[in-house]
Amino acid sequence: MSKLWQKDNTSVNEKIEKFTVGRDPEFDLLLAEFDVLGSLAHTRMLESIGLLEADELAQVQSELKNIYQGIQNGEFVIEEGIEDVHSQVELMLTRQLGEAGKKIHSGRSRNDQVLVDLKLFTRARLQELAESTFRLFDLLTELSERFKSVLLPGYTHLQIAMPSSFGLWFGAYAEGLVDDMEMLQTAYQLANKNPLGSGAGYGSSFPLNRTMTTQLLGFNHLHYNVVYAQMSRGKTELFAVTAIAQIASTLSRLAMDICLYNSQNFGFIKLPDEMTTGSSIMPHKKNPDVAELLRGKTNRLKGLPNDIMLVMSNLPSGYHREMQILKEVLMPAFDEILSCLDMTHFMLSGIQVKEGILDDSKYDLLFSVERVNELVLQGVPFREAYKIIGNEINSGEYHPNRNLQHSHEGSIGNLCTVEITAMMEEVKQKFGFEKVEKAIADLLA
Amino acid sequence: MSKLWQKDNTSVNEKIEKFTVGRDPEFDLLLAEFDVLGSLAHTRMLESIGLLEADELAQVQSELKNIYQGIQNGEFVIEEGIEDVHSQVELMLTRQLGEAGKKIHSGRSRNDQVLVDLKLFTRARLQELAESTFRLFDLLTELSERFKSVLLPGYTHLQIAMPSSFGLWFGAYAEGLVDDMEMLQTAYQLANKNPLGSGAGYGSSFPLNRTMTTQLLGFNHLHYNVVYAQMSRGKTELFAVTAIAQIASTLSRLAMDICLYNSQNFGFIKLPDEMTTGSSIMPHKKNPDVAELLRGKTNRLKGLPNDIMLVMSNLPSGYHREMQILKEVLMPAFDEILSCLDMTHFMLSGIQVKEGILDDSKYDLLFSVERVNELVLQGVPFREAYKIIGNEINSGEYHPNRNLQHSHEGSIGNLCTVEITAMMEEVKQKFGFEKVEKAIADLLA
Amino acid sequence: MSKLWQKDNTSVNEKIEKFTVGRDPEFDLLLAEFDVLGSLAHTRMLESIGLLEADELAQVQSELKNIYQGIQNGEFVIEEGIEDVHSQVELMLTRQLGEAGKKIHSGRSRNDQVLVDLKLFTRARLQELAESTFRLFDLLTELSERFKSVLLPGYTHLQIAMPSSFGLWFGAYAEGLVDDMEMLQTAYQLANKNPLGSGAGYGSSFPLNRTMTTQLLGFNHLHYNVVYAQMSRGKTELFAVTAIAQIASTLSRLAMDICLYNSQNFGFIKLPDEMTTGSSIMPHKKNPDVAELLRGKTNRLKGLPNDIMLVMSNLPSGYHREMQILKEVLMPAFDEILSCLDMTHFMLSGIQVKEGILDDSKYDLLFSVERVNELVLQGVPFREAYKIIGNEINSGEYHPNRNLQHSHEGSIGNLCTVEITAMMEEVKQKFGFEKVEKAIADLLA
Amino acid sequence: MSKLWQKDNTSVNEKIEKFTVGRDPEFDLLLAEFDVLGSLAHTRMLESIGLLEADELAQVQSELKNIYQGIQNGEFVIEEGIEDVHSQVELMLTRQLGEAGKKIHSGRSRNDQVLVDLKLFTRARLQELAESTFRLFDLLTELSERFKSVLLPGYTHLQIAMPSSFGLWFGAYAEGLVDDMEMLQTAYQLANKNPLGSGAGYGSSFPLNRTMTTQLLGFNHLHYNVVYAQMSRGKTELFAVTAIAQIASTLSRLAMDICLYNSQNFGFIKLPDEMTTGSSIMPHKKNPDVAELLRGKTNRLKGLPNDIMLVMSNLPSGYHREMQILKEVLMPAFDEILSCLDMTHFMLSGIQVKEGILDDSKYDLLFSVERVNELVLQGVPFREAYKIIGNEINSGEYHPNRNLQHSHEGSIGNLCTVEITAMMEEVKQKFGFEKVEKAIADLLA
Repeated sequence: MSKLWQKDNTSVNEKIEKFTVGRDPEFDLLLAEFDVLGSLAHTRMLESIGLLEADELAQVQSELKNIYQGIQNGEFVIEEGIEDVHSQVELMLTRQLGEAGKKIHSGRSRNDQVLVDLKLFTRARLQELAESTFRLFDLLTELSERFKSVLLPGYTHLQIAMPSSFGLWFGAYAEGLVDDMEMLQTAYQLANKNPLGSGAGYGSSFPLNRTMTTQLLGFNHLHYNVVYAQMSRGKTELFAVTAIAQIASTLSRLAMDICLYNSQNFGFIKLPDEMTTGSSIMPHKKNPDVAELLRGKTNRLKGLPNDIMLVMSNLPSGYHREMQILKEVLMPAFDEILSCLDMTHFMLSGIQVKEGILDDSKYDLLFSVERVNELVLQGVPFREAYKIIGNEINSGEYHPNRNLQHSHEGSIGNLCTVEITAMMEEVKQKFGFEKVEKAIADLLA
Repeated sequence: MSKLWQKDNTSVNEKIEKFTVGRDPEFDLLLAEFDVLGSLAHTRMLESIGLLEADELAQVQSELKNIYQGIQNGEFVIEEGIEDVHSQVELMLTRQLGEAGKKIHSGRSRNDQVLVDLKLFTRARLQELAESTFRLFDLLTELSERFKSVLLPGYTHLQIAMPSSFGLWFGAYAEGLVDDMEMLQTAYQLANKNPLGSGAGYGSSFPLNRTMTTQLLGFNHLHYNVVYAQMSRGKTELFAVTAIAQIASTLSRLAMDICLYNSQNFGFIKLPDEMTTGSSIMPHKKNPDVAELLRGKTNRLKGLPNDIMLVMSNLPSGYHREMQILKEVLMPAFDEILSCLDMTHFMLSGIQVKEGILDDSKYDLLFSVERVNELVLQGVPFREAYKIIGNEINSGEYHPNRNLQHSHEGSIGNLCTVEITAMMEEVKQKFGFEKVEKAIADLLA
Repeated sequence: MSKLWQKDNTSVNEKIEKFTVGRDPEFDLLLAEFDVLGSLAHTRMLESIGLLEADELAQVQSELKNIYQGIQNGEFVIEEGIEDVHSQVELMLTRQLGEAGKKIHSGRSRNDQVLVDLKLFTRARLQELAESTFRLFDLLTELSERFKSVLLPGYTHLQIAMPSSFGLWFGAYAEGLVDDMEMLQTAYQLANKNPLGSGAGYGSSFPLNRTMTTQLLGFNHLHYNVVYAQMSRGKTELFAVTAIAQIASTLSRLAMDICLYNSQNFGFIKLPDEMTTGSSIMPHKKNPDVAELLRGKTNRLKGLPNDIMLVMSNLPSGYHREMQILKEVLMPAFDEILSCLDMTHFMLSGIQVKEGILDDSKYDLLFSVERVNELVLQGVPFREAYKIIGNEINSGEYHPNRNLQHSHEGSIGNLCTVEITAMMEEVKQKFGFEKVEKAIADLLA
Repeated sequence: MSKLWQKDNTSVNEKIEKFTVGRDPEFDLLLAEFDVLGSLAHTRMLESIGLLEADELAQVQSELKNIYQGIQNGEFVIEEGIEDVHSQVELMLTRQLGEAGKKIHSGRSRNDQVLVDLKLFTRARLQELAESTFRLFDLLTELSERFKSVLLPGYTHLQIAMPSSFGLWFGAYAEGLVDDMEMLQTAYQLANKNPLGSGAGYGSSFPLNRTMTTQLLGFNHLHYNVVYAQMSRGKTELFAVTAIAQIASTLSRLAMDICLYNSQNFGFIKLPDEMTTGSSIMPHKKNPDVAELLRGKTNRLKGLPNDIMLVMSNLPSGYHREMQILKEVLMPAFDEILSCLDMTHFMLSGIQVKEGILDDSKYDLLFSVERVNELVLQGVPFREAYKIIGNEINSGEYHPNRNLQHSHEGSIGNLCTVEITAMMEEVKQKFGFEKVEKAIADLLA
């Protein structure tokens, strides 16, 4: 029973088993709840086209909901010798319902089931990721407003350039997340398309109603073409890890800033004590390990899209077994990025910023553009004003005017937090979480 | 004059010049028209806040439009000794208008100008790419409908699996482009945000009206935060090459299919003679060079996002000079992907498909699932039907029933071309090309 | 005690703990034996410079060997609350020996210990990898000789080109491994340099004798410069995964050939039954899952060098905490590539090759070059002979001469297995395994 | 004549021509001299096996040497309408010698010619790269010795850690190049194997003497197996760019250090004026553009191995046309890395280091380990000494002892420049440049 395809006289070598199964049992557990959702929808559709009797449907639905409950309670296991999550669910149904339980595979192949499970899983985890990112966004905008008057040197080329502020710095990362969410939303929409009914990639001769399962599962669209539905394998994962890599890029850069600003040579911030460690030989050290690991972990996540491309490159169309290992790329990546977001949130919650940094005379030159602009506003052409201040600096006659007048949209004096938050809200609406949540609730009702 | 920042007594070594300038002169020419657009908008805004007189504005606008016309006519050059496109435009203005010409730099830094140029350039080329992709989509749906009754073996694991069709095969790549367009649209939206007014990344003390330039240039949004505006450098390019890589993935896979199907061991298609070459030692060869180069060029494009990440990884916030070399990654990529799309279009226009492929008895087993499903529809449980047909095959008693009944959405008998086209139309609307085109037309009017 | 650097009043949050510790406990167990080797050498050196008494040394050496034995027996564990393998070993020593146990940290930092552990670990696993590759090489040359007269179509552009043979095909992959071993040997030499004594990257004020530990641990050279010793972190891992990726490339390509040749459209080979699986809906399938997974797993390994580069890119010199996560890249990669080599060996051991493939008339054109060459040997200039045979083919008058005369070095009739094996032997000698093995044996004696 | 394989009635569309030819004409010019070397060797071998008359050989050799001389003088061009460098050389021979000129293609295919050209090209450029790296190594060791007593803060975690020196810093990068040269040497050995005689990857029925051409061209070994010779395409390029990426990694990290150390927040070095630029809006700026571009260019080079893997991934054995585009990856990379090495050499030649950095009290804590070690040498156990000094620091009683005593191999006081130089010399010997140079000289004599 355990392996439907197993020819009778073929013994399966244990080593091969390990090589082919890989980390699937671990991942299959994560897919279990989504597998049940898929079967809830599929069986309702089967009944609607006459491949399941009404009373069979009622039994199957009830039993599937029991199994779903068990999964939520952490009681679900894949039994010894059972090949995968799909077989386990079918086995549990058959134990309770006999023949009716076996019918849930009608009009589906295993590829079909894995694909719909992966879509539902990815969709759910991308929502979690979006929500965690929104939380970080809220914290960053809050910090941006709280520290809007604390000035910071602005650098270009790692050289002291012009005055900046903690308001701008925190706000920059907040606004960055808005664009990252656009990418996440794109990945979400690809995960939000229904592959069910595509069989092994060539459809089925059963008169399946794919529009019906699309609605039942809250999908936004079908993957109509059955060959393409199969080709969305790899692509769904690629879009998801591209979105993850994008958030990772933002966090990685923030972490690098933090490591620099925390160095004694900058000294702009102080991290919570729990986030630093000492040295086994240097008693004075307070190392920003958490920020460094955040930087490293997020940098590593940036490699995932390439990993998928290396696996998929030059594979002709149609299913290939190694698509299975894309789960190893995708599934742990969600945990990793979520813990990175979490840790960033925690670190920023306790960050201390230093006041009065720009009072140090080494930052005097930051204000030279202000002096140039002053002259311009007095009527001196820009190129001339630039020259005048340049000469002042070279001859030591330059004196900074620390009175900043930045007032335009997005500048030190006008952070536009409201407008940035409105942009984020706009992106949030595109996801359409409510529609999905309602469909799933209805399916389980 | 040529280098505004050049200290008087510093001679610049030629080798360093070559190292730092790189391919910029070549790329600057491509940016010229967008640089003028940026100045048209910026000067109108300068006048509105009193930094330019009304008559100066009129002169500057008129002269900028002349320069724009010159660029369109291919007459624009960057003169010997002039540092970059921005300096060249300013020089041309100053020659004609004197002091007024110099004022266009007020309230802007070079970073500001490069950034807005890159945004406008990327936005325009992404539109071109979208349009070229729509054309290929149209051809693929047309081929899908034209060859919908020509059957093809469907493979899984590169093993003969189930019946497929040229209708499904062409249609699959068409539908794939719909999702690729979603990614392209996301990249377009990031390119469609206004960085102008962010200065060198820390804004300006002039009371710039950034909302005004946003509207004038047809941008959909501002990059509000000036630090983030600068951080969008690298990210705008990354989103664009991610979209390019996505289309490339689809073309690459199609090219691999074509190379296989064109092999004598498959023999499913025939390519136009102009697209194949012979061998210097084997007189019988007809090699699918174009398809192979298409595969190789698109595979190479898939590495571009990673190239950008390697350059940007661990750079702290603020501008760094090497961001300039991202132009070398981005700008030639557009030409490359556009020529790949073009060549794919050309190749598919002349492709010949073989009829009657499945009549060969080696494909008999393709129809085994049909036989299983027949039994199921007669009431035999699926698992049992599977066993019965399996035994028939092993004992040599299996006879294929070539009468296909696939009717559900997206299957051989029901390609859903209309629905797929509607999805593509939906994506197309999200770009908002008309609004952008209107703004640019108004600016040049 | 558990965290040497922990400030008294600082409580460590559990979540941070998990984030920073990561998979280190798991990896530390793999480093344990090498940590003991490092301490065996370090303490002998400490005694030689007067930082340990002779009797203390005797006790420490004896106890370290006990711990080593425990590790070999699988009894070693890192106790609850103990930070890492180094602390665990020190704790065990101190329990037995009191003060003397604490002295093993003199003149070393944790960075120093981790680095030497990683070098010794990498060196040992690269040796294992080399030995496994040699075994596969032996099988491939054996198969090449066994099937040297079984012909195969040779393809270029996936088009039928010229006659090849299983002898050539197996032999090609054998010879490929020779060059892969050159890369492995390079990685081995980098792992075979001694970082001990570099402290946290800036050396020590103790008069350490680094040449002595180099000899005791069998290292081929020192990393002299202490700053560079620390910079070899990341680089040692990169060289190792580059070598792994190289072997992976060879296996991946072989796996692709196998998947194609096993397809019904080629039908050149048959895989052992245990290596194929069936389908849940298609009763006739025999899918080459093992070959596909081999292809996918090896393709994924090819991304590891890039992963390391993304993490290390733009980190300034000096240790950074995220170097720790390179262990996650490196350490599981050895298991993965070793299982791939193992599975390839197993698959090839049972492979069946088809005889008489070229008798099929569809392969007639393979012999056209032979006909051209025949004419050339009769005095016809090559370009003319090429034209004549081309015309024969087009007019249907071409008849293949299946009598092959390939006799030069490396051709069908002269595989040069002896010469290829001699090249492999030459590479094998460069590693210098015996010297290393002897040093370790002496250290443990 | 121009396209040997062109079927008479097939017109070749111009766009396809451009797509397929790509940048080949540009690259072919770079291959010309190596193509002639290949033909010099091949024709001597042809004569030895009776496929060329002695007098024909004399004529051909003489004429090939003329062409070689023309190439060296920059006179060689590929004429309008001639397909490639091989055809051009053959055409020039035939114009002078008639029929004898045509015979040089006997026993060779174009694949064969391209492959040997690429091997010889790569071998020559890798030698150039090695020599340029040796020059940089010499400068770095010279700087290391010159500034051995100028102290520098040593950082770990970007935190002030322990005293370092410019001697250690320059020396670290010198020693790093030694290991990079090992990788370069490995790439060189792969380029130093003879593919000639492998035909299109399936050998030839002519009785070629491949050992003879191996010796004539100074190759170290044959690629015996003809199928493998073809598979070395892609691999030779991969090894070469891996070596380039390795040197690039070292330069990139050095560039990052330079950018940091040049920042006002560190202020450890001063770059030559010609290597810095100003700002268009900030009159005080001196930006380290050259160092930044060096960082960016080298980071980009690190992506090349991955580019090759993306193109080659999952291609079955045998030649495929897209291997041609690997030239676009490989050939410009040499120019790029050589200019990076050149610029690094130039920048370091003019670098000024700051004396007395550590006198600043903010670096007092650098000396804390020294104090701990002092106590240890007085008999205090390390863990206790660590605690004592930690308490001193916390209570403000800590006073640094700036008297450094580092004397062990590779430490501040003992740089081991002689030993490091000896290691470099050892690597240099492995290349075997003399043997290659002698063979080429003999061939041209």
